[in-house]
Amino acid sequence: MPIVLGDNQYGKSETHVVRIDRSSPAHGIKDLNVSVALAGDFADTHLTGDNSKVVPTDTQKNTVFAFAHDGIGEIEEFAIRLARHFVGEFAPVYRARVSIEEVSWSRLNDHAFARSGEEQRLATVTCTDDGTWVVSGLSDLVLLKTTDSEFHGYMKDRFTTLPETDDRIMATSLSARWRCRDTQVDWRASHREVRRQLTEAFAGHHSLSLQQTLYAMGEAVLRERSEVVEIRMTMPNKHHFVVDLSPFGMANENEVFYAADRPYGLIEGAVTRDDAPEPGLAW
Amino acid sequence: MPIVLGDNQYGKSETHVVRIDRSSPAHGIKDLNVSVALAGDFADTHLTGDNSKVVPTDTQKNTVFAFAHDGIGEIEEFAIRLARHFVGEFAPVYRARVSIEEVSWSRLNDHAFARSGEEQRLATVTCTDDGTWVVSGLSDLVLLKTTDSEFHGYMKDRFTTLPETDDRIMATSLSARWRCRDTQVDWRASHREVRRQLTEAFAGHHSLSLQQTLYAMGEAVLRERSEVVEIRMTMPNKHHFVVDLSPFGMANENEVFYAADRPYGLIEGAVTRDDAPEPGLAW
Amino acid sequence: MPIVLGDNQYGKSETHVVRIDRSSPAHGIKDLNVSVALAGDFADTHLTGDNSKVVPTDTQKNTVFAFAHDGIGEIEEFAIRLARHFVGEFAPVYRARVSIEEVSWSRLNDHAFARSGEEQRLATVTCTDDGTWVVSGLSDLVLLKTTDSEFHGYMKDRFTTLPETDDRIMATSLSARWRCRDTQVDWRASHREVRRQLTEAFAGHHSLSLQQTLYAMGEAVLRERSEVVEIRMTMPNKHHFVVDLSPFGMANENEVFYAADRPYGLIEGAVTRDDAPEPGLAW
Amino acid sequence: MPIVLGDNQYGKSETHVVRIDRSSPAHGIKDLNVSVALAGDFADTHLTGDNSKVVPTDTQKNTVFAFAHDGIGEIEEFAIRLARHFVGEFAPVYRARVSIEEVSWSRLNDHAFARSGEEQRLATVTCTDDGTWVVSGLSDLVLLKTTDSEFHGYMKDRFTTLPETDDRIMATSLSARWRCRDTQVDWRASHREVRRQLTEAFAGHHSLSLQQTLYAMGEAVLRERSEVVEIRMTMPNKHHFVVDLSPFGMANENEVFYAADRPYGLIEGAVTRDDAPEPGLAW
Repeated sequence: MPIVLGDNQYGKSETHVVRIDRSSPAHGIKDLNVSVALAGDFADTHLTGDNSKVVPTDTQKNTVFAFAHDGIGEIEEFAIRLARHFVGEFAPVYRARVSIEEVSWSRLNDHAFARSGEEQRLATVTCTDDGTWVVSGLSDLVLLKTTDSEFHGYMKDRFTTLPETDDRIMATSLSARWRCRDTQVDWRASHREVRRQLTEAFAGHHSLSLQQTLYAMGEAVLRERSEVVEIRMTMPNKHHFVVDLSPFGMANENEVFYAADRPYGLIEGAVTRDDAPEPGLAW
Repeated sequence: MPIVLGDNQYGKSETHVVRIDRSSPAHGIKDLNVSVALAGDFADTHLTGDNSKVVPTDTQKNTVFAFAHDGIGEIEEFAIRLARHFVGEFAPVYRARVSIEEVSWSRLNDHAFARSGEEQRLATVTCTDDGTWVVSGLSDLVLLKTTDSEFHGYMKDRFTTLPETDDRIMATSLSARWRCRDTQVDWRASHREVRRQLTEAFAGHHSLSLQQTLYAMGEAVLRERSEVVEIRMTMPNKHHFVVDLSPFGMANENEVFYAADRPYGLIEGAVTRDDAPEPGLAW
Repeated sequence: MPIVLGDNQYGKSETHVVRIDRSSPAHGIKDLNVSVALAGDFADTHLTGDNSKVVPTDTQKNTVFAFAHDGIGEIEEFAIRLARHFVGEFAPVYRARVSIEEVSWSRLNDHAFARSGEEQRLATVTCTDDGTWVVSGLSDLVLLKTTDSEFHGYMKDRFTTLPETDDRIMATSLSARWRCRDTQVDWRASHREVRRQLTEAFAGHHSLSLQQTLYAMGEAVLRERSEVVEIRMTMPNKHHFVVDLSPFGMANENEVFYAADRPYGLIEGAVTRDDAPEPGLAW
Repeated sequence: MPIVLGDNQYGKSETHVVRIDRSSPAHGIKDLNVSVALAGDFADTHLTGDNSKVVPTDTQKNTVFAFAHDGIGEIEEFAIRLARHFVGEFAPVYRARVSIEEVSWSRLNDHAFARSGEEQRLATVTCTDDGTWVVSGLSDLVLLKTTDSEFHGYMKDRFTTLPETDDRIMATSLSARWRCRDTQVDWRASHREVRRQLTEAFAGHHSLSLQQTLYAMGEAVLRERSEVVEIRMTMPNKHHFVVDLSPFGMANENEVFYAADRPYGLIEGAVTRDDAPEPGLAW
């Protein structure tokens, strides 16, 4: 029963690069956290310490900075350029995956900005000689609705104590990642419109379960955005519990809530087209 | 050399209360993290475990929820109500301090919201039988300017290697806390306008040092807002280093930066009126 | 091109349960963070909001507490009991996955403890009607060696600036997860001995690359622990950079280091037996 | 009502320096996070941007690394050396405060180590031309006892719902900082023995309130360690709530607990000698 090397990859994670565009009086800013992971013919370094096929992670970091010099564009484009470089430049590299998190800044004047918040725009690009797979996304978009959310009719067993409700707060911190039919996409517009569909569906949906809301959000994206063929969402149920004020002689008509940290529900699901192309190495 | 009890206080920290206002079709939301600290005649519980003068922290938490039932108003007002309650209700309590962090939500529709980001609005209220002190504030407001920031002419010694610069990125995560002449303040308007002065001064100032910018920001607040008599600011210098691209044959004209996490400069300072009333127990 | 529901699961995450064993004068403590995820016949709740096949996540939390009443045992055993319960009790549940993180406490006396640190022991158990898959693990084990680590002979391109070294600090925060041939395992002893092999291999190995160290650690585990058939490791390269003290007239003989936060290398790899049984749903 | 500059200080925070001692085959490691804050004649930089009296924070960072070259010793000593340097070397600096957090590593062999956990050893040294003040400390020492903790006999009002108990879990994450009569202290032994007194008093005390435990811990330190004249402690009450298992037909005899994150009690107190010298600028 010999011992063998299994799947492996390596790379430089979390290179935090900020690119300023000074080409017009109104400066631009792109603020990215870039992670690179390479897979390929790397058995030697594991088995013998022969590094002759290893691209140092330090070089990967340098490459991120050097490529940023030529401008970023949309993060999907920047990730494509980087991933293709690693696959094309280095024979031992079979697969390169570049993941980018972007935070946005709102303009105060031509050269001053305030960070917009914790929400992140995401892109993950995977390249081999055989193809390029792009996943776009967002994370840390915190949403809450004060009504239009019910939860009842569920299974009950001896451990069930949850009361049914026809009016509760629903809150989540949305992570969504989606893939498009091909790479001929206006990434900026697509991201903006997918985000709009997600928030509008969350806000406008009358929910009987967080699962139903998740599906409605994904369905809205696929219905309105023809370029998207699959979307995967992770939605923690950030519980807001009605505080029992009856010991103090007060009725609590869904007005005072305790926002809990842990535990939390976690709902994960995908919505897809039945003719979606194979995902390949996208995820 | 007998051993004695020194300064002490106790309370319930981080009660996360969300209050929904359903009095109109467009629901309101207030999202607060409330901390209470009481000082007073508490030697017995320390020395003998006699708790007859102790208000349990659990009761303090309940009080936060019960008071929320009557509505929040501005956080300064809510903190005043709570702090006065603890001092007025419980004879052993000499001093109550209530600190509140508020995060804001932006409206999606009548009953749905997206969290606005990590910026927090702050209030700390201290009450005794002799007075009420209010400190307002904000934190986690991340600001950056791409130019109009110089740093040179500083002291040099044998450990100095920093090159002087007449054009750098300046970035910070602003925490500011300020006190007003009295409690007859339109807290909402005051907070909004102080925040405006801080961001506009940051954006508009031509900076020779982060210290100068800090002072300019505080000065703008005191100049434009007559109710404010003192402001204290903490401004980390979130370093953005120009990446050396010369090994790759590239000039880096202040375009590609590495955003560092640690270490960071930390600039702290107060700006005040020379006729400001004594701070008393404010801070 | 109809829109359809794809893969989905849901459950209660991060139920933090502490179980005290008072059956002997020397009390025992188990401190677990338990997450449950269920997959199965849940299309209705997504598509129509019909929850009649949904086990509420609140019930899952209650179940964790109720099962804790009967004692925990090793976390692999507790996770097996829970996962089998969800699959066996609820017809719509096809697959249950229970993930547990355990932190340990060191004894001060019969009934007092100090927490041992950030290191976590992990177990993930997946159950269906067809089988039970167990993955054991650990995370946040931070290791460092001051010598016996080289890195040279790597590929170079126009973006390479890293100097080769035959003596550097190597540091990582180890996450390792492994699966055994079957579930007839003394989990406590196995975890203790796998951990010992990992730390001893890290400490004793003369490293030519972090990849080589990773493989050596996995190989040691498989060589010495016959019950383990595959191990997967994630090892960030926590860079410690030699500070250039030459401007101050000082030689730095690998004595003064700057410990960087970001970016970091990230090395991931599996070591396996060539006759390992299929992983099935283990991972 | 002219506007004036108030209290201010600045410096470099969180320089993470690791110092390896290779003077013997069994290497030593010191892992420090060092923060420097300077106060003095810095009005010019605030008011006009004239930096001629400013020691750049970058220079402060370099100084930390350069001083580390000569060895660390105990962190109190290293902080004294640094703080005296800044006051002595730069005329505009009136006061230097150096704060150090140290994490410890446990030895695996002559040159390999595992990090011991999250507990930190602390030192804060403040220097002026008139004196040197040293505060030692520790933080993130998480302690728990399964019994010997009661809480009853407290004040009750209309918001009180907490049931009295004569047996509960008590848990805290201890932060303690103390000052000694002078600087002629064996810092290593003193820290070790103060820590021992704190943990033994926590473990051995029969508690009627967390306040009483805090005092008992401080009293033990002052009673047994003649060099210590004051100790200040911060002890969050990390609540462990007995889970109500009665709906499931189970009695819960203080065996199954839910460990809550927020809110938490927060108990702060000082224990001192009545002949303690004035604290001066220590805190």
